Amino acid sequence: MISKSRIKQIQGLHNARSRKEEQLFIAEGEKTVKELLEQLPSGIEEIFATSEFLEKEGALIRKSGVLFSEVKEDELSRISTLKTANKVLAVCRYFDVKEKVGPNDTSISLFLDEIKDPGNFGTLIRLADWFGVAVVFCSPGSCDIYNSKVIQATMGAFIRVKVVYTDLSVVIKENNFENVYGAVMNGANLYQENLGPGLLVIGNESTGISIENLKLLTRSITIPSHSSNGTESLNAAMAGAIILSEFFRKIKI
Amino acid sequence: MISKSRIKQIQGLHNARSRKEEQLFIAEGEKTVKELLEQLPSGIEEIFATSEFLEKEGALIRKSGVLFSEVKEDELSRISTLKTANKVLAVCRYFDVKEKVGPNDTSISLFLDEIKDPGNFGTLIRLADWFGVAVVFCSPGSCDIYNSKVIQATMGAFIRVKVVYTDLSVVIKENNFENVYGAVMNGANLYQENLGPGLLVIGNESTGISIENLKLLTRSITIPSHSSNGTESLNAAMAGAIILSEFFRKIKI
Repeated sequence: MISKSRIKQIQGLHNARSRKEEQLFIAEGEKTVKELLEQLPSGIEEIFATSEFLEKEGALIRKSGVLFSEVKEDELSRISTLKTANKVLAVCRYFDVKEKVGPNDTSISLFLDEIKDPGNFGTLIRLADWFGVAVVFCSPGSCDIYNSKVIQATMGAFIRVKVVYTDLSVVIKENNFENVYGAVMNGANLYQENLGPGLLVIGNESTGISIENLKLLTRSITIPSHSSNGTESLNAAMAGAIILSEFFRKIKI
Repeated sequence: MISKSRIKQIQGLHNARSRKEEQLFIAEGEKTVKELLEQLPSGIEEIFATSEFLEKEGALIRKSGVLFSEVKEDELSRISTLKTANKVLAVCRYFDVKEKVGPNDTSISLFLDEIKDPGNFGTLIRLADWFGVAVVFCSPGSCDIYNSKVIQATMGAFIRVKVVYTDLSVVIKENNFENVYGAVMNGANLYQENLGPGLLVIGNESTGISIENLKLLTRSITIPSHSSNGTESLNAAMAGAIILSEFFRKIKI
């Protein structure tokens, strides 16, 4: 049984302002909670799980020493952010992630400029994890990393990727990036460019990189299309996947 | 006003069996219907649109000569497959798309092995369009290309990409592919491999390429991870984006 006031408090975490005030967020689903238990148990404030999850993962939970409560499915769906609650929900504390390598060395960092779709945002974090991106900087108007849909889409990568919200001009000034690349419509051919360490800017899904941030780019790159009738661009996450892949092929392989 | 029997018939197209029987499917949303009107008006049986859409796109509709009806928003939501109906819905006829180039020349084709998620499936079709893939073959258990969520996710690419459902063994026999590549967990490094024309197999989101299809591969490739703790793989669509990008860099750039 969860108390009414506790239910209300957890429901509060469904919106960004309460999350920020309480410095808490929700992570849901078996896979995500298991990753938290294994990799960052100190980040978990409390776990709410069905008997089914507790039977299966009891040993892991006990080993982690994390506080947990057994709940019925209808209780879980009251605190869940999902249409269909999924066996377990963890209330977690905001936490810091170390950057992979400093932004001044041979690494690549990302800047997400007003990425608004939680699925795209989470997927880009997942890609950043895969490619060992040093830091993901985001414009202040981008998605909240602690939005539960974002957490879900990262597939656990939120535990490992450092995310920082700040303006592009500040990022560039503080980190002294030599190269600031931007993914745009009419830039240089991605595959033919000599790419080095630096910062890669990916723009909003419909409006692209903002006009003021375009001025801060030192190099503009484009993924060439082979479509016979390419009226449509790739989405932000796919473009991110292709460009990061090419960066890491050129820098690290 | 749409008649009750017409509403029932269109609602029937929400499921795959009726679509196949009637050889009709639903395409929704302003962007998708506009692309159909511009690129394939002969594929449209009838358009149902709100006054708002008709005012905006009246000239385009009249020019196309396509049959259309004005509907109220609540009528549209009754025939729509979306949670929130989006101004216009087109009932379309099944149609054939020409392949970009024959599978025997310098092109790359895709084989989707039991891709079940409509978002992933549609995204892979969109990528195939972007990279000029000759044909997308799919195992018979993969998503239906005429599923409205797939149509939506392709962002118009379903008009331009040839999709064929058949077994991998048949595809290989009929097209004489010299190279049959598969995206797997422990294959050769994608970036270091000498890649040529052929067929690229992408497996199911959770189980990968089926055991019987693994036996038909001539070369296994893997995207190397730079993650410090890469417990999670990339999803099928992202893996597809990265691998197709590398193929086209090596073959066409």
